[in-house]
Amino acid sequence: MFYSFLYSLFFTAILLYIYYIYFSAATHALLSPCSKLLPATSWPFGLSCQKLQTRADGPTPSPAAAPDRLPFSRITPEDLSFFRTILPGRAITDPDLLESSNVDWLKSVKGSSEVLLRPQTTEEVSQILKYCNSRNLAVNPQGGNTGLVGGSVPVYDEIVLSTALMNNILTFDSISGILTCQAGCVLENLSLYLEERDYIMPLDLGAKGSCHIGGNVATNAGGLRLLRYGSLHGTVLGLEVVLADGRVLDCLATLRKDNTGYDLKQLFIGSEGTLGIITAVSVLCPRKPKSVNVVFLGCETFEQLLKTFQLSRGMLGEILSAFEFLDSECMRLLNTHLKLLNPISDCPFYVVIETSGSDPTHDGEKLHNFLEEAMTSSLVTDGTVATEDSKIKGLWSMRERVTEALTHEGFTYKYDISLPVERIYQLVTDMREHLQDRAKSVVGYGHVGKTSR
Amino acid sequence: MFYSFLYSLFFTAILLYIYYIYFSAATHALLSPCSKLLPATSWPFGLSCQKLQTRADGPTPSPAAAPDRLPFSRITPEDLSFFRTILPGRAITDPDLLESSNVDWLKSVKGSSEVLLRPQTTEEVSQILKYCNSRNLAVNPQGGNTGLVGGSVPVYDEIVLSTALMNNILTFDSISGILTCQAGCVLENLSLYLEERDYIMPLDLGAKGSCHIGGNVATNAGGLRLLRYGSLHGTVLGLEVVLADGRVLDCLATLRKDNTGYDLKQLFIGSEGTLGIITAVSVLCPRKPKSVNVVFLGCETFEQLLKTFQLSRGMLGEILSAFEFLDSECMRLLNTHLKLLNPISDCPFYVVIETSGSDPTHDGEKLHNFLEEAMTSSLVTDGTVATEDSKIKGLWSMRERVTEALTHEGFTYKYDISLPVERIYQLVTDMREHLQDRAKSVVGYGHVGKTSR
Repeated sequence: MFYSFLYSLFFTAILLYIYYIYFSAATHALLSPCSKLLPATSWPFGLSCQKLQTRADGPTPSPAAAPDRLPFSRITPEDLSFFRTILPGRAITDPDLLESSNVDWLKSVKGSSEVLLRPQTTEEVSQILKYCNSRNLAVNPQGGNTGLVGGSVPVYDEIVLSTALMNNILTFDSISGILTCQAGCVLENLSLYLEERDYIMPLDLGAKGSCHIGGNVATNAGGLRLLRYGSLHGTVLGLEVVLADGRVLDCLATLRKDNTGYDLKQLFIGSEGTLGIITAVSVLCPRKPKSVNVVFLGCETFEQLLKTFQLSRGMLGEILSAFEFLDSECMRLLNTHLKLLNPISDCPFYVVIETSGSDPTHDGEKLHNFLEEAMTSSLVTDGTVATEDSKIKGLWSMRERVTEALTHEGFTYKYDISLPVERIYQLVTDMREHLQDRAKSVVGYGHVGKTSR
Repeated sequence: MFYSFLYSLFFTAILLYIYYIYFSAATHALLSPCSKLLPATSWPFGLSCQKLQTRADGPTPSPAAAPDRLPFSRITPEDLSFFRTILPGRAITDPDLLESSNVDWLKSVKGSSEVLLRPQTTEEVSQILKYCNSRNLAVNPQGGNTGLVGGSVPVYDEIVLSTALMNNILTFDSISGILTCQAGCVLENLSLYLEERDYIMPLDLGAKGSCHIGGNVATNAGGLRLLRYGSLHGTVLGLEVVLADGRVLDCLATLRKDNTGYDLKQLFIGSEGTLGIITAVSVLCPRKPKSVNVVFLGCETFEQLLKTFQLSRGMLGEILSAFEFLDSECMRLLNTHLKLLNPISDCPFYVVIETSGSDPTHDGEKLHNFLEEAMTSSLVTDGTVATEDSKIKGLWSMRERVTEALTHEGFTYKYDISLPVERIYQLVTDMREHLQDRAKSVVGYGHVGKTSR
């Protein structure tokens, strides 16, 4: 029943095992292509390592570079005719228009899909999947195509089903803060909509200008606010999902606590589209904080950075909303490629700390005490504070635009990893030693740890 | 494969549909037995309504009072011999010792199990379930047996598998705040253990002195801290579960973010034991707040109570950690049966508000400003504040001991319901009107709403 649907997802999942699932969220390394540098045994799957070498600007994947195409049907003129009937003007076959759906944002992998479908409604998604299932056609769901792990593009000729036109906000309850919207809503648009209503989204990430909320949920995106508002397993209250055979699963609850039966929606959070296509989402949104501060600090060692993190948890407590880091190599790339200037003096490590609270005076005092203690005990060597929106955005861009800076440096291998914080930077230094001059640079940046509020 | 295992759980689930799942967490009604008061059509399941009339002190369930016993095997001397071999001294058959496992805390339902098994390890749970599965014997998992919905006791002769002896803390990481323990740990013991280490459990509830963490997870308990720390779907990081055929599913991750594969553990949270028996849990624990305050307030109307809630969300913001209510009927029962004295003047509604923060001065100021505003705008008519531990416990007992007070009043029907806050008390007034003098009293109490931190 799920067979045709799983085709593309099998490959994307394999890719994700390398890039995302096995190494999930925290440190990133920028390397030159390294097809022979790493022995196959150092990868969870040797197969996937080969797949990584399929460059977007390189040749079509050879049998050695990707898993074999599974025996799915090829698209026929009859199929196209069906799609054009149910999606008038929204079944795209023009190769130029398909180009951007076949390549990922990092241009690291490239598919060869010949059809891009742009449904507007759950019913249309259902019709598409029901048809594809009956015809044994492979489908690749695609949101904002901002993923950094190649998981959002086809491997062969899978049909791309884009959620881009499913971008309506369905309801927002200004008392409970519960937002219900279609899966294709761009995260930043949701944030802007909510901010006008004195709320914010419980997640935020660098790709917010393009990424879709459905994709965020499908990949269980953590992002910059995980520290404060927790994971999507807690903040997503409901989902609507279309299964591979076209059946619609309605789990769009909007109660904070709903113990009626199994919490099936949880299975779809982080399932990467392999169990169905998310078509609508309901999210519990936090109140917009009355007071936001951002500080940018420099540390001499990663150990001092971790001590600064511990100190901030104790002294900033319930107002700590983000703690991010980047190293001096990231700063060099931000300077070189994006002309972003270091707001403080040069240091080996930099930290972005955000506080969000309900009382500007109290928050200011907590922050002042924290900074005084951090400076006095020599944990940080330099720093700057922002309370105005424009300066806050400026400081945040030092962290949010690192990924963009990397793309200007050359071909990028990016690993998204979760490790206990005290060990995470060791990976970067080990990689530097291992690769030496075979990589132009190896950098580390990301979220520091989890916290308990 | 799951057949024998599901036997008892089928009935408990049915009960839960009435008591818990369909009406989940917030208002409770105390009624005299009402077998003919409510037409069957007003219940989700007529069958369950009948089941509710099976009194613990009444006769054995008649075919009309409970679903038929499914065709599971009866326990033989050979079965007992097997259990005694693998659980020396921990396979209980003495009817006196079995009594408390056959009756729920409210004494509303009674089973007739003849065997109580008390495993100490996951391996023993696995052996038991493997054996029962092969022998087609029904099993009823039981934690602290503190449930208020009859879900933890057998309906017929199911084997009771208690987690009471699985009460070891396995690991605690004082940096990350991640606790891993066996499922039978009593919630309050975990809280005491953590408080010595400057952490707290992310959930708290009235039954903490007896309830097991495994049962909390299996029933997706919300409790008094849901408002601040969110649901168990966010705070439970890992589970170990034994499936009905004895296989052990190890999802005991201790990373805050783990995107490796499907998040299977989520399915077991709130599954009421129907998918397997939880044997170990890892939980993300928050830091112990440096400053805790509790206020007890009186309101003239439920509308004013809701306005007080909205005001507290705005003015207490990130330090608001609980907002609970009880009505004057609850207060009367607390006075009458438990000799608890009203700490303020008589009012139709009472509120318990808790704040938790990192700075006593800031928290005190926020609370002072909030109380001044609430008094000035006549939302509350009287109130008292506690900052010392003993007085805090005293005020909390006004809310936590309501359920206990109800049991002294007579036979209790308790409904645990989730509704939009603005409509929740209407249910109590409607029930009073509907039942009139056929119930001794109808009371309402519980958590008020969700919040977005």
